[in-house]
Amino acid sequence: MSSETADAAVYLDRLDRVRATMEAESVDTLLISVGHDLPYLTGYTAMPLERLTMLVVPREGDATMVIPGLERARVVEQPGVFDIVPWGETDDPTAIVARLAAGSKRIAVGDQMWARFLVELLPHLRDVEYTRSVDVVGPLRMRKDRAEIDALAAAGAAVDTIAGELQRGEIPLVGRTEADVSAHIGRRIIEEGHQKVNFAIVAAGENAASPHHHAGDRVIRKNEIVLCDFGGTMNGYCSDTTRCFFTGEIASDVAEAYAVLHEAQAAAVRAATVGTPCQDVDRAARSIIAEAGFGDYFIHRTGHGIGLEEHEDPYIVEGNERPLEAGHAFSVEPGIYVPGKWGMRLEDIVVATESGPVPVNNSDHSLVAV
Amino acid sequence: MSSETADAAVYLDRLDRVRATMEAESVDTLLISVGHDLPYLTGYTAMPLERLTMLVVPREGDATMVIPGLERARVVEQPGVFDIVPWGETDDPTAIVARLAAGSKRIAVGDQMWARFLVELLPHLRDVEYTRSVDVVGPLRMRKDRAEIDALAAAGAAVDTIAGELQRGEIPLVGRTEADVSAHIGRRIIEEGHQKVNFAIVAAGENAASPHHHAGDRVIRKNEIVLCDFGGTMNGYCSDTTRCFFTGEIASDVAEAYAVLHEAQAAAVRAATVGTPCQDVDRAARSIIAEAGFGDYFIHRTGHGIGLEEHEDPYIVEGNERPLEAGHAFSVEPGIYVPGKWGMRLEDIVVATESGPVPVNNSDHSLVAV
Repeated sequence: MSSETADAAVYLDRLDRVRATMEAESVDTLLISVGHDLPYLTGYTAMPLERLTMLVVPREGDATMVIPGLERARVVEQPGVFDIVPWGETDDPTAIVARLAAGSKRIAVGDQMWARFLVELLPHLRDVEYTRSVDVVGPLRMRKDRAEIDALAAAGAAVDTIAGELQRGEIPLVGRTEADVSAHIGRRIIEEGHQKVNFAIVAAGENAASPHHHAGDRVIRKNEIVLCDFGGTMNGYCSDTTRCFFTGEIASDVAEAYAVLHEAQAAAVRAATVGTPCQDVDRAARSIIAEAGFGDYFIHRTGHGIGLEEHEDPYIVEGNERPLEAGHAFSVEPGIYVPGKWGMRLEDIVVATESGPVPVNNSDHSLVAV
Repeated sequence: MSSETADAAVYLDRLDRVRATMEAESVDTLLISVGHDLPYLTGYTAMPLERLTMLVVPREGDATMVIPGLERARVVEQPGVFDIVPWGETDDPTAIVARLAAGSKRIAVGDQMWARFLVELLPHLRDVEYTRSVDVVGPLRMRKDRAEIDALAAAGAAVDTIAGELQRGEIPLVGRTEADVSAHIGRRIIEEGHQKVNFAIVAAGENAASPHHHAGDRVIRKNEIVLCDFGGTMNGYCSDTTRCFFTGEIASDVAEAYAVLHEAQAAAVRAATVGTPCQDVDRAARSIIAEAGFGDYFIHRTGHGIGLEEHEDPYIVEGNERPLEAGHAFSVEPGIYVPGKWGMRLEDIVVATESGPVPVNNSDHSLVAV
């Protein structure tokens, strides 16, 4: 299911629920520009440009989409969902938005709106308390419905196919550059039905110790670890999985660490039951890695929510006491990174359900020798 | 030249000039997160993620890069340019930034910073006047140096090659979908040396009347106009050109309108001399189109600055009285759009120099029958 192709009833329902949250949070106006809240609420994706697009949602009354006249033809009207106010090239769109939001005491602002638009709004709207739109839209977006979970599962199955090809050596590693393998994985992501490649990290040997390594000219050699972390967007929803490979007979220190990682990841998945605070899922992985003596080498949170965006709420991190709810979808991806030597990570997307955690990624979880 | 590979002296010089502008604009602190100001000033490109990366530049004293610990390994240190403060997964990076900016009365904020970070900063930093970083960094970035102009020219020559292929029918149009031609142009953009495709608009017939049409399943037919507007990023700098084609014998109404467009575009290029206000370049094109009776069909500004970004200052638009300076680089791209029938646009990137306007795009400016 693509959010873009849902019908008006879906958006009306979402806006109704947004208004209920605005009531509960005492938010008078919600301002949504570029980012994923906009297509989630209206079906329209704004181009991230200097020309302002802004959905203005008052707690009561009609929503208005303020949009560059130039983009008017791209908007699919959703009667009853929002009015359209196109602005001309010499108009001041900030003033239009300020007029629509006049009198508000508390305004929620889209996370990824360009700061310039908020900077320009500030002098128009004084004595206003600003808050993040995640307080309003986030709780809705976190709870995926059946169609959204199906979309995540389909995207997950598509990247699992590619993980399998890597594990069976059908996408060769040794002798190729990281960048070459990354491009190969990118092509396969599209061929498997995604519309967009979001990333394809390929990190060999010591490069794998940098969790967000940028695939480069480094040639993959025999007898080293290769970390592949890749995902894209398929019909509006994201995939994301990480598997590691060893190009030869697995070195004993690597095998030992991987056994710890494997156990930690599985424990965190098992811990991801409805009602469990997010931080407890992080702790489930972290305690096992720490007990094995690798605590200092697990340098990131255990996971992030996923849906229309690769990274969204809920974050699986110490300090996040939010209890998991049915429909929450997130990554579980502990890692161990030894600078200058090697790194490893194991990642599945997991959906919390009333009948327990359900991983959408099911390729072999072992460190496979290729 | 890639901004990413320049040496520390380049960044030190740019930061010195930024501080001089901060002094002139009474800006106490400059805050730069995702976007192109960061690589321009430091050589480092931040990932657009929920983990905060922020360069904090005080008017006096050392600059500090506040960065997720996870990304630490990706930063190339530039001794003397900035200090690095990595933050851990359970730290509050906003509080770190607020401490570094404490006492500021006027803070300039990067345009494309996510609004969420400004929303989070507001309660930390009260009684502050916020302004846009374009007031500080923009004037510098607008004036391209020799290496930057060379980079724009190289990227321009690369897309001219592709425009020529379209004009000679080497990239066929008739019988293919817009999306198929768009993908073909995208591949050619990469093959011609760009690292990234930024867009490849292909709009046939009535679709060309929507200036930002998204290439779709529409099959290109005989005897219609096809508008192709494409560009990418090559060694850090952007290309952008638009040419139109006619798949058959050119219809007389289209030929007549195109002659007006062609004349208007050439007149605007000629008008783009050092010292001329940006709006006068817009007027040069607009007056010719209006006199021919197509004024209501030219629904956008004449152009935008270009450099590290596809769209940046200076904008060639009514109301922009900024005089062009040597080194300003921008598009000149008037268009005529008749809803339901056809659209046309003609676009070159032009650099203002002391010896007059220099277009970096030089493919045939005619409406070529293919």
